[in-house]
Amino acid sequence: MEALTGQIQFINELEKLKTVKRRNLTLDNQRPENSAEHSWHLALMVPILSQYSASAIDQLKVMKMLLIHDLGEIYAGDTWLYDQSNQDETYQNELKAFQQVISPLPTGQQSELLALFTEFEAQKSNEAKFAKVLDAIQPLTNHLYVSNEKENPDQIKVSMVLEKKAFIKEYAPKLWALVEDTIKASVEKGLYEEA
Amino acid sequence: MEALTGQIQFINELEKLKTVKRRNLTLDNQRPENSAEHSWHLALMVPILSQYSASAIDQLKVMKMLLIHDLGEIYAGDTWLYDQSNQDETYQNELKAFQQVISPLPTGQQSELLALFTEFEAQKSNEAKFAKVLDAIQPLTNHLYVSNEKENPDQIKVSMVLEKKAFIKEYAPKLWALVEDTIKASVEKGLYEEA
Repeated sequence: MEALTGQIQFINELEKLKTVKRRNLTLDNQRPENSAEHSWHLALMVPILSQYSASAIDQLKVMKMLLIHDLGEIYAGDTWLYDQSNQDETYQNELKAFQQVISPLPTGQQSELLALFTEFEAQKSNEAKFAKVLDAIQPLTNHLYVSNEKENPDQIKVSMVLEKKAFIKEYAPKLWALVEDTIKASVEKGLYEEA
Repeated sequence: MEALTGQIQFINELEKLKTVKRRNLTLDNQRPENSAEHSWHLALMVPILSQYSASAIDQLKVMKMLLIHDLGEIYAGDTWLYDQSNQDETYQNELKAFQQVISPLPTGQQSELLALFTEFEAQKSNEAKFAKVLDAIQPLTNHLYVSNEKENPDQIKVSMVLEKKAFIKEYAPKLWALVEDTIKASVEKGLYEEA
């Protein structure tokens, strides 16, 4: 049962993702959302929104991808979408951290999870693209629903949001109107600067 | 796009599960684990431990089941495993709450999620049984890994734990030694009373 020992070590390691703080908030005491509950939210959005993917997708694959996509943050921390630092360096750090997190697993499971992680980053497959759509929509809808009025400490502008979310138009065109409406309502709530 | 409006309403409603507190703790500041991050943990355990299920399972189905199994708590609250109150009443309350949570969704999606929820409760299918195994193992391993020494405010006894977890012996016999070892180590840490 050597495999099981490593699998439980991995399962224990997952506890740490519940301590990785994101920029988004939660409803109750406006604490920062953590990457574990964010990943749960995304995985559950798969069966709810998959009909809007531009291409056919394997739901199980998208779900697994989203459940593990932030595990590198256990050692590398969360990177804010509007952070201007070196993105390639950020990814290399997360990849290294991810490999460390999965290292107690049997080699077959390590290979499967690593393949899902790098596939998400590569953004070539239909599953990776739709996973990215969900990962881009949840923070938008969360921000509008959860944040207090006029909460825009970093002076985020509409143009910056539109630039970051533009790919949704191609990967899930039927969700683009939602993105535009959400941004518009967020501007009315004072969460983004118009411009 | 009336369907999408309801789907986003449901996705917003999910924010509330991040505020439902469980008895288990998290690593950082020993705050209570919430039901959203607990559900993420379970869903990710599916591909890691499915080889130990006594019967063949559809991983996607188990994953969806675990992602939604606590949604009734959004209005009904979490019920502690060792709570002695009327279990049928607890389930009826959670079922009612679950139906309220999914009510903004298109009818086809409501039916699918309700079927998964009631299948989990019925404990007849292989998927429901294995989902219950994971839901019973995660709080055990979490408690041993996360809790401080001698943390047993409710004087939980080994016999109570063994009674609640006994079904694992049948549904995933290869995981039973893990359960026994975890309980033994937890007793040594002062988390359960020997008896």
